[in-house]
Amino acid sequence: MSSAKKIVVYFAHLAIEQSVINRTLRDAVGDLDQIDFRDLHELYPDFFIDARAEQAVMREAELIVFQHPIYWYAAPAIFKHFLDTVLLRGFAYGPGGDALQGKDFLLVASTGAPAEEYSPEGIHHNTFEDLIRPIEQTVRFCGMHWLPHLVLHGGHGLPQDVVDAHAARYRQFLEDYRPASQR
Amino acid sequence: MSSAKKIVVYFAHLAIEQSVINRTLRDAVGDLDQIDFRDLHELYPDFFIDARAEQAVMREAELIVFQHPIYWYAAPAIFKHFLDTVLLRGFAYGPGGDALQGKDFLLVASTGAPAEEYSPEGIHHNTFEDLIRPIEQTVRFCGMHWLPHLVLHGGHGLPQDVVDAHAARYRQFLEDYRPASQR
Repeated sequence: MSSAKKIVVYFAHLAIEQSVINRTLRDAVGDLDQIDFRDLHELYPDFFIDARAEQAVMREAELIVFQHPIYWYAAPAIFKHFLDTVLLRGFAYGPGGDALQGKDFLLVASTGAPAEEYSPEGIHHNTFEDLIRPIEQTVRFCGMHWLPHLVLHGGHGLPQDVVDAHAARYRQFLEDYRPASQR
Repeated sequence: MSSAKKIVVYFAHLAIEQSVINRTLRDAVGDLDQIDFRDLHELYPDFFIDARAEQAVMREAELIVFQHPIYWYAAPAIFKHFLDTVLLRGFAYGPGGDALQGKDFLLVASTGAPAEEYSPEGIHHNTFEDLIRPIEQTVRFCGMHWLPHLVLHGGHGLPQDVVDAHAARYRQFLEDYRPASQR
């Protein structure tokens, strides 16, 4: 029997020691048996991502989670470097590139700004969903199934019980997760 | 008199030796006197960007150019790391963060896919303009003026004369550039 985990959570934060939300979320799911929790900055402090190792991890997983705060309307840069160096032609797309086909993908993100600021009339001039089009389209282009994202807005100054409730929802989702073939 | 350059071109490519378009574009503008051409991977091979140095460069510039290929619907990761580590509160936004207010910004990008694939019906399911909303909104949030972007689509297999014509247009734009105060 394979010891491979069926869920891989990729995580990154530029200042985890100052984080409330992402530390709470990390601590809420990090001990689950079925999860391979991979802190990208811890694994690759110099950004030299081991593409072959990460491709092997992704091949085995049924659900791939990206968990991070939103900086400048997108993931921390190391996630983009992960896309650029791991999701290669022949692995993720193109001839023979079917390794991710049919897998589930979940974005777990937090924003400092409250939800209402993400609108055409708000200070950020776009909906949150419009701003995450690049990652959603990346996921779809690789044949993965985009699950409804879990986003916590207004991170600057949320009461801890709101954060805890969100973390519990995240943990519950991962505990309850069944691959498409078993649903 | 200050020796500061009024135009800074930030550049990155993960495999410049295999590039046709971005090498042609780089070579077309790299010798212009008024330009500080900064190859981010050459300057920061380990991604440890000197934020203070880059803030000083940006303060002096009137026009900031990001020149790069599009990977996974966005800039190479080091551009995102540049945003995350250089465009800080107190510099680019927030109290006292007015260093970039009123500057011009130009995106010079290339895509492998042809223009018609960037549409709701195309393989990429979004217009190119929708996919670059995060960087456009970043630029606007910092109070910069978003100039009409220069994008060359269909990079896989364009005739060299088409690439050369685009490069010439890029060079001409930079040669003719005048800050808003002089227009």
